[in-house]
Amino acid sequence: MIVVMEKNATPDQIQHMVDRVQEMGLKAHVITGTERTVVAAVGDERDTKAEALESGPGVAKVLPILAPYKVASRELKPEPTQIQVLDFKAGAGALGVIAGPCSVESEEQIMSSAVAVKKAGATALRGGAFKPRTSPYSFQGMKEEGLKILAQARAETGLAVVTEVMTSEEVDLVAKYADVLQIGARNMQNYRLLEAVGKSGKAVLLKRGASATIDEFLLAAEYVLNEGNPNVMLCERGIRTFETHTRFTLPLATIPYLHRKTHLPVIIDPSHGTGHAYMVPDMSVAAVAAGADGLIIEVHPTPETAASDGYQSLDFEQFEETMRRCKRVAEAIAVS
Amino acid sequence: MIVVMEKNATPDQIQHMVDRVQEMGLKAHVITGTERTVVAAVGDERDTKAEALESGPGVAKVLPILAPYKVASRELKPEPTQIQVLDFKAGAGALGVIAGPCSVESEEQIMSSAVAVKKAGATALRGGAFKPRTSPYSFQGMKEEGLKILAQARAETGLAVVTEVMTSEEVDLVAKYADVLQIGARNMQNYRLLEAVGKSGKAVLLKRGASATIDEFLLAAEYVLNEGNPNVMLCERGIRTFETHTRFTLPLATIPYLHRKTHLPVIIDPSHGTGHAYMVPDMSVAAVAAGADGLIIEVHPTPETAASDGYQSLDFEQFEETMRRCKRVAEAIAVS
Amino acid sequence: MIVVMEKNATPDQIQHMVDRVQEMGLKAHVITGTERTVVAAVGDERDTKAEALESGPGVAKVLPILAPYKVASRELKPEPTQIQVLDFKAGAGALGVIAGPCSVESEEQIMSSAVAVKKAGATALRGGAFKPRTSPYSFQGMKEEGLKILAQARAETGLAVVTEVMTSEEVDLVAKYADVLQIGARNMQNYRLLEAVGKSGKAVLLKRGASATIDEFLLAAEYVLNEGNPNVMLCERGIRTFETHTRFTLPLATIPYLHRKTHLPVIIDPSHGTGHAYMVPDMSVAAVAAGADGLIIEVHPTPETAASDGYQSLDFEQFEETMRRCKRVAEAIAVS
Amino acid sequence: MIVVMEKNATPDQIQHMVDRVQEMGLKAHVITGTERTVVAAVGDERDTKAEALESGPGVAKVLPILAPYKVASRELKPEPTQIQVLDFKAGAGALGVIAGPCSVESEEQIMSSAVAVKKAGATALRGGAFKPRTSPYSFQGMKEEGLKILAQARAETGLAVVTEVMTSEEVDLVAKYADVLQIGARNMQNYRLLEAVGKSGKAVLLKRGASATIDEFLLAAEYVLNEGNPNVMLCERGIRTFETHTRFTLPLATIPYLHRKTHLPVIIDPSHGTGHAYMVPDMSVAAVAAGADGLIIEVHPTPETAASDGYQSLDFEQFEETMRRCKRVAEAIAVS
Repeated sequence: MIVVMEKNATPDQIQHMVDRVQEMGLKAHVITGTERTVVAAVGDERDTKAEALESGPGVAKVLPILAPYKVASRELKPEPTQIQVLDFKAGAGALGVIAGPCSVESEEQIMSSAVAVKKAGATALRGGAFKPRTSPYSFQGMKEEGLKILAQARAETGLAVVTEVMTSEEVDLVAKYADVLQIGARNMQNYRLLEAVGKSGKAVLLKRGASATIDEFLLAAEYVLNEGNPNVMLCERGIRTFETHTRFTLPLATIPYLHRKTHLPVIIDPSHGTGHAYMVPDMSVAAVAAGADGLIIEVHPTPETAASDGYQSLDFEQFEETMRRCKRVAEAIAVS
Repeated sequence: MIVVMEKNATPDQIQHMVDRVQEMGLKAHVITGTERTVVAAVGDERDTKAEALESGPGVAKVLPILAPYKVASRELKPEPTQIQVLDFKAGAGALGVIAGPCSVESEEQIMSSAVAVKKAGATALRGGAFKPRTSPYSFQGMKEEGLKILAQARAETGLAVVTEVMTSEEVDLVAKYADVLQIGARNMQNYRLLEAVGKSGKAVLLKRGASATIDEFLLAAEYVLNEGNPNVMLCERGIRTFETHTRFTLPLATIPYLHRKTHLPVIIDPSHGTGHAYMVPDMSVAAVAAGADGLIIEVHPTPETAASDGYQSLDFEQFEETMRRCKRVAEAIAVS
Repeated sequence: MIVVMEKNATPDQIQHMVDRVQEMGLKAHVITGTERTVVAAVGDERDTKAEALESGPGVAKVLPILAPYKVASRELKPEPTQIQVLDFKAGAGALGVIAGPCSVESEEQIMSSAVAVKKAGATALRGGAFKPRTSPYSFQGMKEEGLKILAQARAETGLAVVTEVMTSEEVDLVAKYADVLQIGARNMQNYRLLEAVGKSGKAVLLKRGASATIDEFLLAAEYVLNEGNPNVMLCERGIRTFETHTRFTLPLATIPYLHRKTHLPVIIDPSHGTGHAYMVPDMSVAAVAAGADGLIIEVHPTPETAASDGYQSLDFEQFEETMRRCKRVAEAIAVS
Repeated sequence: MIVVMEKNATPDQIQHMVDRVQEMGLKAHVITGTERTVVAAVGDERDTKAEALESGPGVAKVLPILAPYKVASRELKPEPTQIQVLDFKAGAGALGVIAGPCSVESEEQIMSSAVAVKKAGATALRGGAFKPRTSPYSFQGMKEEGLKILAQARAETGLAVVTEVMTSEEVDLVAKYADVLQIGARNMQNYRLLEAVGKSGKAVLLKRGASATIDEFLLAAEYVLNEGNPNVMLCERGIRTFETHTRFTLPLATIPYLHRKTHLPVIIDPSHGTGHAYMVPDMSVAAVAAGADGLIIEVHPTPETAASDGYQSLDFEQFEETMRRCKRVAEAIAVS
């Protein structure tokens, strides 16, 4: 941590900061510049309340040096983590594809989707039984009945089931049926929920909040990892920006950045990341080209009548063609 | 709702949309323009799955006409709502000031803060007992012990207690001690929690998510109102933008916009909204001048050693001076 | 255009809007809904001052229906435009690669770069002679001397020269040496400059402003096209968002969106779009996979000592490897 | 400047950075932490190419310490600058109000506006003669004829004339008629134009770009100041964010931040900053309460028929009432 003093900071103010840094168990180095004095604090600043120093007398700003996360860090575990559930594998060279409808609407809808996405190459089935909806007037999901349908689809196809859990009380119920617990973007900083899925031991698909920084994203993962659950997948699903021609802006540079900073697999969601079905195929292949460890794609038998997210869902044929293109690109980049 | 067709949409595609609109229980009007045909759908589009129409054949885009919220709307209830709890009043001409530390740290810290903020003009005391922290390594709050200290401060000063509740399981516990339940920005779309505080019947301070649109914000309020709880205050606490010289960007135009759209009181949080103590006084008076119905301000006996948010907390003297300035501005704008 | 009236708009106010719409030469249709009345205006709204209607009595909002650009539109010219200059081709199936240093620093630097990028597969050379620099204290470019070095590199390698022009007075000078005139992101809405490069007849590489919407981007292109110059390439170089782990956020969904809306070629700049050299290879292949018509990449003999943008420049070897990967992905997606 | 090394940086890599820092004329201090080594570079980093060090071997990141601007800095000139032109004064305790239509449309429109805004308390008249328009199909301004009308209004009312100049070639022409040259938000980084208005010696109203950081804003001012022209006013006119209920987001915290960092006066534009006439009064008084040194407000005899920006223009009566409220608030905050 670097404490930058104001230009006119007094010797007493500088000494005060040195004392404060040392009280925190860190070692202080004073560097006197031509225009500024800085106090460098050496040691693990993550366990301190260093930010509060900013309100100290004569302090201009405080710059952290260390990343705030630990267990998620690639410095701690240099080799990439691979998550495997049934035939679904993501990370360390494996590309895992999760596909299916936004919401579970009926047995027939899920069964036909499961068969179709499996045939096209997916190894996991998505489908929401508990739906977080922006409006209380929107369809809220089939709840446990939906979970049962998903489990039945797994029984018939062997696909791993990925489904969202919205609250810590429901973790046990959802974990009874699901293989991967999804934390939605709106819950990325619901810390009690993160702890609960951490304790469940189930694999977790953690979606990035629409305005979360990557450090906040990795700290959310850290809440899960800290409970002793190492099976966390990080899902980039687009961020909120000034753009309106897409529902969110999908920043694929998240992939090389996360691969440099963490060992956890990176999954891309081109459906929420664009909000328009016609953009999903191009962004899926782009994600694969950029080195994604997996994709999660909304697929529906008849998008136009979907209970939710129809505008961004592929139909079966579009999904099959997208998978063909992804496969060719995956082969192209695998050549060394 | 207006369904705009592609330039080259066929008569069959247009008819298909007319049929779909009518299936949704709406009335369809076709308007044939020089370059585009549009299908106007008349009726309450909020109960439909209209967005899915965007993936229909020949559709360019779908434009909603009606705001998605109902109960929060000023059209439904034109007169402003005033929230009153003990001596705290906000809305319909009353300016309510909530002040106190970010976290409850000790009895002494809370008692001295309560006395100081009351003397300066606050009518409610804030203090976090359950703390949502970005990092699992940060101080997580004193929990029930903290709630008891807050209740004791109320007993001694008469200040209303405002404190955050993070999860639906804890609503009963927190409601036992608090007068106003605060929903943090990270939980603005935690729908189970919104329903739970709605059922509690307690007054609710709902913070805007850092990247929530105003429609999303009002729909979150709608989750609470829908449970029959009319006592919701809307708190603007800054949005995430590209700016880095402030922690968040505080958009005070939220005040006139919300006053036009909703009858609920609007509270401004200049502490989180700027992230720097030295900006808080100016932004507090600006909020009052813009017509805010209340303020929530972080105040700490010694900001430099605060367990959290020290960089944005005022000390007692700074808070007192800020209140003096706010009072003068409130009087100036009250003159008609 | 759709004029949405307030809920309580009077018949007189509605009639007033009908009159105003007709004064603008448009045809008015009144649609009386259950909650709102809307006035639909049929005709070419682009030549009107329709936005001002928003301040009319009883008006809630005005929704445009037509895109504001014309000549750039795919509706006007359905087949994609290909830009060709010397051996450089972009669009309609051709992938054009522009590479070279941020700034022209010396003859030796440019010559070695030109030879290296040509060998790796680029067909155009970039290099700035007039440099727009955020700080007046930064290196401002070699000016005409730099242009001469670029022309010399073209003479020796056959690469097309792409270089920035910053002001309308300098268009003639730069056009004397360059094959493609680049308009920088900061000048995207410098309308006198857009008109001047339009008149020059030279091919234009127009960079998207860091906070420009796509409509604003296409309207900037329209300024050039309107001068009778059809040779415009649209360059996505990243937008400004709250993200700080990249210098800008590179939204590749711009590619499918622009391909749907316009016939002009789309070039991606992964160097400015990320701001970190190590991300450039992955984002280059991702752009190719997403269907980009070209790339513009910063390459420098020794990035660490570059006069500008060293942090985001590839060295020769990194660029060569990136081109190899791009070629394989381009082949993979070309299979139909 | 602080160069943070990667965790596994070798002693050779650290020594290399020490050498590079010293080559730049700075002094290097190596601080060996428990997890990281940092190289602190002491001296004036603003004249170096320090950012390029980021691509050096073993470097994790480079953190600047000093602000990049100099002449604009409050450290250089602690007392606030007051700009005075005719009766218009802004800064150092004076609140200067500029008002008038977006575009000059006719003599009558300007004359009636000038008389009305003067009567309400404005001391400067705004009006665009050269209009930068997003679309080439929009009204582009009356050009020199418009300037003459503005000069005539000054002759009759004594109001200072504030008008935009769009390109360096037109600076002499505009300076012949205007008292204050306005640089629009889209031209904030048009460096040739900034130099030209710097050389003109006229007072300059520099608008912040919609996605410019404050450092970029102050560096743009620095381009003007560097030409020996000290009369620069900084105008906050709103930034582009994800919000859509306002055209831009107006961050009033810019006022206390700029007052801390620079001696230049800060003017607020609530018209562009909100994009809706009904928000302008509240945001005007809020700006005054937050300590703004001036306001620039769009006022039109009949906003509904304005050639541009009608949706955000006040009529005469609304402006007069706004001035009344501003005056009361200015008096309230002036009490010490």
